[in-house]
This record gives sequence, structure tokens and C-alpha cells, in this order.
Amino acid sequence: MRVLVAGGDGFCGWPTALYLSAQGYEVLVADNFSRRGWDEELGTESLTRISTLRERVDRWRELAGRGIGVAVGDLTDERFVYEVLEGFRPEAFVHFAEQRSAPYSMIDRSHAVFTQVNNVVGTLNLLYAIGELVPECHLIKLGTMGEYGTPNIDIEEGYITVEYKGRTDTLPYPKQPGSYYHLSKVHDSHNIMFACRTWGLRATDLNQGVVYNVETEETTSDPALTNRYDYDGIFGTALNRFCAQAASGNPITVYGEGGQTRGFIDIRDTVRCIELAANNPPGPGEFRVFNQFTEQWSVLELAHLVEKVARTLDLEPKLAHLNNPRVEKEAHYYNAANTRLLDLGLKPHLLNEETVERLLLTAMENRDRIHPETFVPQVDWRRPHYR
Amino acid sequence: MRVLVAGGDGFCGWPTALYLSAQGYEVLVADNFSRRGWDEELGTESLTRISTLRERVDRWRELAGRGIGVAVGDLTDERFVYEVLEGFRPEAFVHFAEQRSAPYSMIDRSHAVFTQVNNVVGTLNLLYAIGELVPECHLIKLGTMGEYGTPNIDIEEGYITVEYKGRTDTLPYPKQPGSYYHLSKVHDSHNIMFACRTWGLRATDLNQGVVYNVETEETTSDPALTNRYDYDGIFGTALNRFCAQAASGNPITVYGEGGQTRGFIDIRDTVRCIELAANNPPGPGEFRVFNQFTEQWSVLELAHLVEKVARTLDLEPKLAHLNNPRVEKEAHYYNAANTRLLDLGLKPHLLNEETVERLLLTAMENRDRIHPETFVPQVDWRRPHYR
Repeated sequence: MRVLVAGGDGFCGWPTALYLSAQGYEVLVADNFSRRGWDEELGTESLTRISTLRERVDRWRELAGRGIGVAVGDLTDERFVYEVLEGFRPEAFVHFAEQRSAPYSMIDRSHAVFTQVNNVVGTLNLLYAIGELVPECHLIKLGTMGEYGTPNIDIEEGYITVEYKGRTDTLPYPKQPGSYYHLSKVHDSHNIMFACRTWGLRATDLNQGVVYNVETEETTSDPALTNRYDYDGIFGTALNRFCAQAASGNPITVYGEGGQTRGFIDIRDTVRCIELAANNPPGPGEFRVFNQFTEQWSVLELAHLVEKVARTLDLEPKLAHLNNPRVEKEAHYYNAANTRLLDLGLKPHLLNEETVERLLLTAMENRDRIHPETFVPQVDWRRPHYR
Repeated sequence: MRVLVAGGDGFCGWPTALYLSAQGYEVLVADNFSRRGWDEELGTESLTRISTLRERVDRWRELAGRGIGVAVGDLTDERFVYEVLEGFRPEAFVHFAEQRSAPYSMIDRSHAVFTQVNNVVGTLNLLYAIGELVPECHLIKLGTMGEYGTPNIDIEEGYITVEYKGRTDTLPYPKQPGSYYHLSKVHDSHNIMFACRTWGLRATDLNQGVVYNVETEETTSDPALTNRYDYDGIFGTALNRFCAQAASGNPITVYGEGGQTRGFIDIRDTVRCIELAANNPPGPGEFRVFNQFTEQWSVLELAHLVEKVARTLDLEPKLAHLNNPRVEKEAHYYNAANTRLLDLGLKPHLLNEETVERLLLTAMENRDRIHPETFVPQVDWRRPHYR
């Protein structure tokens, strides 16, 4: 199967491209290196040393005896999108190629506008190109569990059957996203749903939870294949950041009370979920939604887990409750469905002390690369900055 | 009260600016003349002869002894938005300044992208500018009833209280928009709701029905104040287009069976609704939604009404069912709430034969300005055009 992985140089995209190639798929990575550029902009960098995409792909060809194609370009460039789809004619298009940080989108007006235009226009271009050139192609789009927010009822997978005043309908699940980034994903979901209904396209929206861990079987098979490890306050996500903090003798920073509960997923399950989606495409016109997470944790529970494992490594972890830079509930009901990927055969890697230990050890090995000033959340949800 | 009317040179914006000025509000119109530009692009024009904005405003000053300010610029230009808000410091911002045609947004990829970027970025700029400069300002935003689609349950005003698996929550009403234009309004609604919740802004989202009629008390008080009358397949809406067709001896074109039911509103009620919203602002942080229509009609019922009145004017109206260019249900449940504006004091102008007669007479007087070829729907929902 020909699979195009857009954003295939990024944190989720690169392990996915490797994994799919290892399973025998014909893989083409499309990327514009914007993720590396945002590190330059923000003065951040991966905790792990990562190779260039060229070095990665060259090494993989030597090791696996199998190539991964590369197309350099931007999905907001309509000529690039058209040409790459016309040339490769993918059977599945895995779309990781979006700005994926909530804090980044909340820096100021221009970052909010950039995030929404970048994400929405890239996806619109893709929908039109698929519709015109490869209408059978299965769009596998990364969404986020953050699209749902924290409603006081159970979260279902994309749709909810509502009984109301004696009538019944199955409707798109109401969305209450918590940043301009999360909003961009909601916009995408609505656009894709419409394109499926109107043009008969087929799409899977993967509402992914917070991804933790950085390593997969393939990324650890050679130093040149190492995945990025983000730990800063803008692109670093909860568990990975906590491990970097504990490993470097910095306080584990919990935002507010830490009662915020979210869905989480190990990156080894991310790559497998993509494969499961690709192997089980929806029918024409179907807009299918899977909630791509394996377990629910509160932020405080995660912090305590990291604290506990860190002590076994002779670290002296401290926990700090910061004023929450985000506007979000710190105590709330949360019960989200996630059965559809399990039904397709996902065998979850549930979070355990071994995974936390590996993350801590990786962080300790790279301690000299940690810039503690980037742990601090610098983006304040409450204040709009025009320029 | 200082009221800024963005899009104040357009079909709804101009009568609103006049009406508010007549009621004693201090009005500033902001416009970039894009609506006039789209006529140039499409080879269409208003059935009525309309003056330039300068001529309109000059004449109004002579007649009313009261000025309407003018600021020429584009809401996607962040410097313009900032400067105009800093200079005028509106207490209410009435936002008509969007691309508002569903068929226009469906022409091809570039028109879809333009519509969404234009509408979403303009509104984002506005949210940031209000948040930073005039956080007390009341944003009165035009949405559309088309955001809801045609669910099989009652449509409420913005929110729905759901009982689900033994729990209850009031959630944003699920949206099923039917074009990239309608989608842009859904994106706006989500962005504005977030800004209210996060920054404490106050906003009213007016989900307007299909607007019919073209005249208000002020627009008919002088030829230089005449409102535009769109009748073409791209910008003309059902009732007004039917009248132009009947008046010029062309068939009344019903798309498909004509069982599509929608909410409708007289433009004389549009201007009054804006005033009611402005006079009754929501509290800080409140995102309030009103469904701004006064009655439900099916397209076929409207066509029959026009047919009937046309006969009394010695016209020989014919009805033609065209293949529906849109993807929409032609028979469906439709029951939408619209009590909140009535509760504030709206006294609806319900559709009657007199209004249809006035529209027919206006169209007959301007028969020589009708280009019948522009009646034909030229945009096909079913085919994605990349370029």
C-alpha cells in the first residue's frame, strides 16, 4: 500500500513513517521542516540529538534495505500538494502536518492566525486534491482529544445519539476546544466531515490523546533514527516534560491543582493505530472518528508517578504547583470512549514504571542539553496580545 | 452609543448603518468594497442602481443632518483593524464583513480557501483587537441558520441541554453546515465562544435566516440611499431571485423538489434585531446566540407565493425544478427556536403578498438591468475543482 506521511519528520510522523516502512508499506514522507524551524524561533531543541531527515532516510535504507521517499514542501502551497498527490497517488494519506502546540497558538494574534490558517488551509488543499486526483484515497487525519473539552457527560467517538423532545438523531459530538490550536482541529474536523458527505471521500479522524514516550523499536535501532524528545513549555507534553524536569534536578511543574484529566497514549501505540486505520479503511463518504488514547490520567497522578520512579534512580524530585497559565477546569468529570481502535486489534502499551524509567534515563544521559529556562510556561491564556 | 458596522456598504450592512444612524447611534462604517468587487468578478450586478458609499453617506448627511463615518479597509489587515478600533473605540461592533455566499465558496479550491481565510482571520483579528483595546465592546456577529444544517431534532438557540447516560450538560448545539461558507461561520462561532470564555469578551452570535426584501424606511427615502438587490445564482437568495425571475419572464428556478425548509427574515427585521442586540448586551464572558429569523418556509412554498402574486400583476410566471446543484436534503424535519429576539421586543414583518408585490414591481421597473444568464446555478457542489 502506498502511504504518504505528511509531517513525517516530526515527533509522531517520523516513528510512523519508519514503522510503516518496516511493515512493508511504500512510504513517502512530505515535510517542510517547520517543526525544526519553531525550535529555532523559540530557542528550544530536542532533548535527544536528532539527525536531518536526509540522514535518517539514508540510514534507514542501509539498515532496512528499503527506501522512504521524501518530498519537501508545504501543504498550504497548493502546487506542492497537487504535484505530490499526482506523482505518488497515495492509497492512504496520513496527515500529521499541522502546528500542534496549544501554547504556541496562544502566544499572540499572529501565532493564532498562523496556526489556524496553516492547519485549515493545508487540510482544505488536501481535500480538494484528493477529491480531484485520488478520490479513493483514505485520509487519516490527526485530530485531538482536546477538541471535546471536558463536558459533564461521557465523551463518545465523534458522534452522539441524542434523544430530545421525543425525537432522536445521531449528531456530531459538540466540541469545546481550549486553545486556538485545538480550535483549528475542530475546524478541520468539520471541513473533512463535509467533504466526505458532499464528495464521497473517505476519512478517519484520529482524536489523539497526549502522547508520551519517544522511542519505538525502529527509532532505537540506530542513533541516526532517534526520535525527537520535546520537554519545553511550548512543545513538551506533560509526562515527557516531567521526566526531563526530574532528571535535571528541576521541579516537576504541575499547572494549578493538577486535577485535569486527559486521555494518554504511548507513541508505540500511535504508530500501530495509524496502521490499523490504514488497513481498515472506511467506505466512500464515511467520516469515521476514533478516539486514539489508551488510558486516562490526571496531571497530578502522572507527576506522582514520575516522582516515585525518579526516587528509585537516586534523583530528588520536587513537585511545584504553578499558577495555571491555561483557562481550564482543574476538577471535572471525564469519561471518554476508546473502543474502536481496540476492536480493530490494538494491544495497548499501558503506562508503567519501566517506560517512565526509560524516559528518565534518556533525559539523564542528555542532561547537558537541557535548558531549564524553557520549562517555564511563558504563554498566558488570559491575555490577548495583538502584536 | 458608538457602533461600528463592518461590511456597512453591503446588502444588510448598509440598511443597518442607516437605521442605527436614524435612531441616533454614532455610526462608523468599515468596508473594503469586496462585495462590489465580487460583482465585477462574476459579471453580476445589483438589480437596483446603487450609489457609491461616498455618495450614500453624503446624501444621508444632507437628509438626516447626521454623519456616518467611513473607514476603508479589510479586517484581514491587522493594522487596519487595530487602528480603526483604537480611533473609534466602539461600544458595539456589528460584524457583517464576511464573504456570505455559499455558492461562491463552492466555486473551486481557491474560493473555498479565500472564504474561510477571509472570514476566520478577519474575526480572529477582531477578537484580539477587542480583547486588547476595548474589552467591554459588544461584538455582534452575523452567523447563519445554515450552521445547524437539518438535524432530525429541534434546533435551539446555540446550545442544547443533553441528558446522556444518566448525566446532564448544556453544550454547544452540534453543527452540520452545508458549504465551505457555512463552515466558515461555524469556525467563527467556535473561535468567538472560546474568546468569550477565555478573555471575558461579550458577544452575540446572530444566526440569521435567509434575508428577503431589500427596502427599509431609510433606503427608500432617497434614490442615493437605495439598497442593492441581488438576484443572480451566486449572491441572490431564494425569494428575491424568484421575484426577479418572474418579473423578467424567466422561469422561477426551484432546486430539486423544493421541500428544503429554512428560516426567513425581512430585511426590516434584520436592522431592528441588530438594534435589539446592541441595546441589550450580554455580560462579560457571555457568548450568546440568537436565531435571527421570523418564520419557516419551504422553497416550493415561496415559489408558489411568488407565482400567485405575479399573476395579479399580469405576469405569466412559470416554475422550473432544476437538478439541485447543492448536496442537501429536499424533505426533512425542521423546527427551529427563535424566541430570544421576540422576547427582547422584535415585532416581525411576516412575509405577505404586499412585500412580494413590492419586490416584483421593483424588479419590473429595473427589467432592463436583468441578465437572465446569471440566474442559472453554475456551481456544482458535487465536483471538487482544484484550480
